Amino acid sequence: MTLQADPERIRTHIECLAKYNATPGYGITRMTFSEQDREARAYLLKEMKSLELSIQVDGAGNIRARMEGCDPKKAPVMTGSHIDTVFHGGKYDGAAGVVSALEAMRLIRDAEIIPDRPLELVIFAEEEGPNFGSPLAGSKAMIGLYTAERLKKLVNEKGKSMYEAAQDAGFYPDRLIEEVKRPGDISAMIEVHVEQSLVLDSEGISLGIVSGIAGMRWAKVTIRGESNHAGATPMRYRRDAMAGAAELVSAVESAAGEFSNTAVATAGKLICKPNVPNVIPHTVELYLDVRDVKREGMLRVLDRIKREAERICKKRNLELDIDIQGSTEPTECSDRIIDSLKKAATGRGIKYLEMTSGALHDTAVLASITDIGMLFVPSIKGRSHVPEEETAVEDIAKAAEVLTDTILQLSSC
Amino acid sequence: MTLQADPERIRTHIECLAKYNATPGYGITRMTFSEQDREARAYLLKEMKSLELSIQVDGAGNIRARMEGCDPKKAPVMTGSHIDTVFHGGKYDGAAGVVSALEAMRLIRDAEIIPDRPLELVIFAEEEGPNFGSPLAGSKAMIGLYTAERLKKLVNEKGKSMYEAAQDAGFYPDRLIEEVKRPGDISAMIEVHVEQSLVLDSEGISLGIVSGIAGMRWAKVTIRGESNHAGATPMRYRRDAMAGAAELVSAVESAAGEFSNTAVATAGKLICKPNVPNVIPHTVELYLDVRDVKREGMLRVLDRIKREAERICKKRNLELDIDIQGSTEPTECSDRIIDSLKKAATGRGIKYLEMTSGALHDTAVLASITDIGMLFVPSIKGRSHVPEEETAVEDIAKAAEVLTDTILQLSSC
Repeated sequence: MTLQADPERIRTHIECLAKYNATPGYGITRMTFSEQDREARAYLLKEMKSLELSIQVDGAGNIRARMEGCDPKKAPVMTGSHIDTVFHGGKYDGAAGVVSALEAMRLIRDAEIIPDRPLELVIFAEEEGPNFGSPLAGSKAMIGLYTAERLKKLVNEKGKSMYEAAQDAGFYPDRLIEEVKRPGDISAMIEVHVEQSLVLDSEGISLGIVSGIAGMRWAKVTIRGESNHAGATPMRYRRDAMAGAAELVSAVESAAGEFSNTAVATAGKLICKPNVPNVIPHTVELYLDVRDVKREGMLRVLDRIKREAERICKKRNLELDIDIQGSTEPTECSDRIIDSLKKAATGRGIKYLEMTSGALHDTAVLASITDIGMLFVPSIKGRSHVPEEETAVEDIAKAAEVLTDTILQLSSC
Repeated sequence: MTLQADPERIRTHIECLAKYNATPGYGITRMTFSEQDREARAYLLKEMKSLELSIQVDGAGNIRARMEGCDPKKAPVMTGSHIDTVFHGGKYDGAAGVVSALEAMRLIRDAEIIPDRPLELVIFAEEEGPNFGSPLAGSKAMIGLYTAERLKKLVNEKGKSMYEAAQDAGFYPDRLIEEVKRPGDISAMIEVHVEQSLVLDSEGISLGIVSGIAGMRWAKVTIRGESNHAGATPMRYRRDAMAGAAELVSAVESAAGEFSNTAVATAGKLICKPNVPNVIPHTVELYLDVRDVKREGMLRVLDRIKREAERICKKRNLELDIDIQGSTEPTECSDRIIDSLKKAATGRGIKYLEMTSGALHDTAVLASITDIGMLFVPSIKGRSHVPEEETAVEDIAKAAEVLTDTILQLSSC
């Protein structure tokens, strides 16, 4: 029996969720534990209850909606995503994964299939992070990385902590310690997510099967030279921090391609001082973001950037300071889940691209306690975290079908 | 007879002028027509009167102090500089030239020499421009480029125009039209000025003889690409405005050296949007400053930069906009004045460097009506327009001696 997802039902859910929005006309803004979040949760809880799922909400506000399996004692197969957004974000980031999971549950329920293992639809709280300042807070709380004490320290701009906000929303953050998911508690976690980049849309492919999620290093590079009059100072006497930084930006771009075909390196932020047209800059602060799904690749790119920075600054008699400000390690998706996703896609004749994820997702957080997998759907023109963010509901439907087949296959004991 | 300048007298004048300062402890701030400017003018007028110079102040506040020549009908030889400063500037920019001219007048007066042509010590108003927003306003008014009407449009941050401020200071801007200096009115203009760069100090040479003053083009280059997630977007799909801008900054630096050994090109200001570490920049605004004493060199450098910008943006699929926001043409110093300055330096055994000026000066403005020449004195470590600005008084004394010999030689009919 081939279960058929309904693109129009998916569209309805996406559009209904988009109504719970603090900034109508300016993209979608739905902060965790806001009025709009409460309404979106109510909408989804009603849908989940109509599927006779049993609902649990943990102390961080993560929702788990369970379809019982033949063997209730077996660890469940989990699927879902998040419903919070960035400020002035789009309709699809997070929502596409939640709605795909909801569609999978509906198809299975409507087909009156009883899975062997329980299935759980998960909605993580506070994935994006602009609200309480920490991305992935919900999934981190679910696996015990963030405790109730930690949630007290995540404070929004009104001065309210995620701990207090969860309490106000009717949840019990102090219970988190008893709710922590440990290895063995979840059999698998699969998330559908918008790609947030151009690859699928450019290639005209509807589905991405993720092989791994990139690790990351964030670095602040400070280059110091000497300010002088831009007219009066001959080129050979200059210690121009901007000229050095420009050479480094080019080296960053080259380094990304040198050691790994999956590495990316970005100079996204540059502060120039004094930033006056007729004064040679004395200082440039450059913020770099280096990622790769292969740890070795990431480290080699970073090392090349460091050595290039040293070479450039030595040659130009500039001072250099490199400060690694953040890091995460790469996460591999589980081979058995990748195989299952590929088999499902092939079985349905859906063309897919095996690809890596440069962005972090809740599912990567869960990799420390369970096998993970991810499906990407195309972001039209690669736009993400903006009001114009868009994904074709037909593509979400294809992902929902592959997801359905895969969670059923994975639930077999 | 060899007239000997007195470094200690020069130091006294420099230090006395430095007392008329709106920001004690934070460099020197002396805005045109401010209380401090009034006090500095009074100090200098007293000195000039002690030399029995006859004083005239024009409608823009430019002071001319005249030592009569054997033939009062002949056009005078003029020397001087300015006494206004930038905010939190130094003691020497402008003051060094005024004090050198004062020293030359004193040496000539003390030696009881009567020059053939009259000599005039000039103190230009509003050279720097931060006050009323227009550099070189005094010298431009002197030659009729700026009228009383124009001075009404130069407004300081308190909303007062240079016209009103000149009136408040006791001058008559409406008389400017009758005071305009035309070709033939001045026989020669020579200015001593701090170099504002590193060349003389680095080379250990006390004196620069300026062969020309650079022309300038100011350009704003806007490069537009597309913002995307820095982690999720493979290198080959990027339209990274920063990567393009970095390549252009390197091209700007290279272009300066390619066509002319006197050209300079600077990327002093860069605005990156959205300027977030993990977002590929969609727009970079780059402000460029291109100068050369050779017009041909300046234009070729600018043309190379334009063509490189086009090549880079085409290759990277970026949009490009180049807006030329300002321009001045190069000015040559007069050969007869250069020769006279060289002869004077050689006669005194003072080693000099023939060099160009990358910065604009009042003397360049006067080039349209008279022969001009400039002497540079070393800026220690090249620092200028900062509290640490410094020049050795011994070097100013050497310049004053060469100036003295030269104005006497040029005053010979």
